[in-house]
Amino acid sequence: MKHNFNAGPSILPGVAIENTAKAILDLNGTGLSLLEISHRSKDFEAINNECMALWKELLAIPDGYKVLFVGGGASMQFCMLPYNLLNKKALYCESGVWAKKAAKEAKLFGEVVTLSSSADKNFSYYPELKNIPQDADYLHITTNNTIYGTELRRDIDSPIPLVADMSSDILSRPVDVSKYGVIYGGAQKNVGPAGVTFVIVKESLLGKVQRAIPSMLDYRTHIENDSLYNTPPVFAIYTMLETLRWIKAQGGVTKMNERNVQKADILYNYLDNESQMFVGTAEKTSRSVMNICFVMTPEHKDLEEAFLEFAKKAGMLGIKGHRLVGGFRASTYNSLPAASVQALVDCMREFEQQNKK
Amino acid sequence: MKHNFNAGPSILPGVAIENTAKAILDLNGTGLSLLEISHRSKDFEAINNECMALWKELLAIPDGYKVLFVGGGASMQFCMLPYNLLNKKALYCESGVWAKKAAKEAKLFGEVVTLSSSADKNFSYYPELKNIPQDADYLHITTNNTIYGTELRRDIDSPIPLVADMSSDILSRPVDVSKYGVIYGGAQKNVGPAGVTFVIVKESLLGKVQRAIPSMLDYRTHIENDSLYNTPPVFAIYTMLETLRWIKAQGGVTKMNERNVQKADILYNYLDNESQMFVGTAEKTSRSVMNICFVMTPEHKDLEEAFLEFAKKAGMLGIKGHRLVGGFRASTYNSLPAASVQALVDCMREFEQQNKK
Repeated sequence: MKHNFNAGPSILPGVAIENTAKAILDLNGTGLSLLEISHRSKDFEAINNECMALWKELLAIPDGYKVLFVGGGASMQFCMLPYNLLNKKALYCESGVWAKKAAKEAKLFGEVVTLSSSADKNFSYYPELKNIPQDADYLHITTNNTIYGTELRRDIDSPIPLVADMSSDILSRPVDVSKYGVIYGGAQKNVGPAGVTFVIVKESLLGKVQRAIPSMLDYRTHIENDSLYNTPPVFAIYTMLETLRWIKAQGGVTKMNERNVQKADILYNYLDNESQMFVGTAEKTSRSVMNICFVMTPEHKDLEEAFLEFAKKAGMLGIKGHRLVGGFRASTYNSLPAASVQALVDCMREFEQQNKK
Repeated sequence: MKHNFNAGPSILPGVAIENTAKAILDLNGTGLSLLEISHRSKDFEAINNECMALWKELLAIPDGYKVLFVGGGASMQFCMLPYNLLNKKALYCESGVWAKKAAKEAKLFGEVVTLSSSADKNFSYYPELKNIPQDADYLHITTNNTIYGTELRRDIDSPIPLVADMSSDILSRPVDVSKYGVIYGGAQKNVGPAGVTFVIVKESLLGKVQRAIPSMLDYRTHIENDSLYNTPPVFAIYTMLETLRWIKAQGGVTKMNERNVQKADILYNYLDNESQMFVGTAEKTSRSVMNICFVMTPEHKDLEEAFLEFAKKAGMLGIKGHRLVGGFRASTYNSLPAASVQALVDCMREFEQQNKK
């Protein structure tokens, strides 16, 4: 039995994987592979439309917003966003490496002010989001920080348009979309395979910058064409659709949230209340429900490699921590079963008992 | 029996489709889906490396060039290219709609001069490429024009860096890469599914523009990271690899060229030497080996819908011509078997015999 804790690309629902494999061999009984059909065909149009409709339904996206599917990853959004929205000044919350990368790209388009940062403690907490100045075009936040295991996990009020990179916690909980100007992210954690990026954008924010925007980087191009301006990543959109169908069948984002909190609690409880060997790295009030980061206590540090080896034999995949934090990381995205988290805790407990100092 | 003449996304080798479906269920016996593995894993690193190596081998790419895999489609290259290469002035050959779109994006970055155009005859011939001025940063050509069925199909000499959009004829013939500065294209015709774009770039051309380039739009970012700067379109790269393996197993691009010319000849011979009802639209010296466009003669025009219906019943898919040309189009990419072209000609002949005027 393997337990997939990969940080992304990561575990997907079994049914989404199986149905994708089927569609690659034969889409809807057409005798053609999903890979061989035109993106202008009725079959793909139906996939694209259902996918957009499910996004709107699952997140209760209000009127005035559009859902787009584009290529290039969230990293492309780091420049596409300021291209479309940054006139003079933008605020960025520095909650980790990805947030810093987003801010760096924005500097090519205008003044970038760091509203708050947790760099002082290696991003082990979520920076404060208050006293937001009103003279900026938008405030950018990264809601979940995969590397450091911190998460905002609530919808804040902002006097200026709020832009959120939700690559690693989208659809893991209900979100009040009306509080955001733009929500974007790579699909490859909770909503699909690598290769497609979702953008939920409030249309009234667009068309206000003075610069000329290349067609492919202009959100309006994709809005006007229902994300079919050019050939979209057909396959990735199909698997995303299958993943959204699964989320809906499971009970939607309310149910996802319930399960995700329960899963995270299994591991955090062990770290907080039982283990003498492992300790969480993120401050408790900032803890992520998606990526749980932990290290060994100083007196056990020499056992890290041994534990990784032990866990690997027990079927735990992808639990090595990012080099910027060290230690371990368990990513517990939507489709990871609670049984996998329990198996990891059992494995940690067993190792701890065998290696007590 | 279905015959897939789709213009793109289009037919792929059966073995590539089957192996992709297998890898989605279980990659290399790892117990994990291709969709669930990290792009930093050894499994994906091996895929990425073999894919780059096969590109170099199949096209005999000389030293000094890099092969990149990025998202966004060829349309993203329309702006990425001038971002990286256009200092003052660029030449564009206007051979069709895609060439015009490429030129339009370049205008945001500098002066764009049309070297030659075939707009006067609805792009039914390939424009001349001579007397190329030496005071421009590069000359951009679109080697094959899917909509109009015209193709350059030879490597010209250019006194300035030659940039080619080869989206629809890459790997269909041997190419002397040393004559080009950049070759790019979407994968979804000859080399894979939609969702990945290849760029073959001569490194010495980069770093000469004054403007700041967003990281994701800077070729150097992807060169420095072997196309792993951010999460790449893992799946699309895998299917591309399987398609390249197939091309190699068939005998490489020399064999592809031989077959493609033979396939195109079957249909062109029928149009030129036998049919009284169908006629090719492209000038003979400019004819594409990849997309064969034809219409009905004026006295048969009223039979177009009837023929489309007749052909559909005979299993011919995707043969409706683009609205800018009308009539019919048969796309005969690498993996389309000669038997499909023969079946189409048989179908045309039968219809013609039944509907003679």
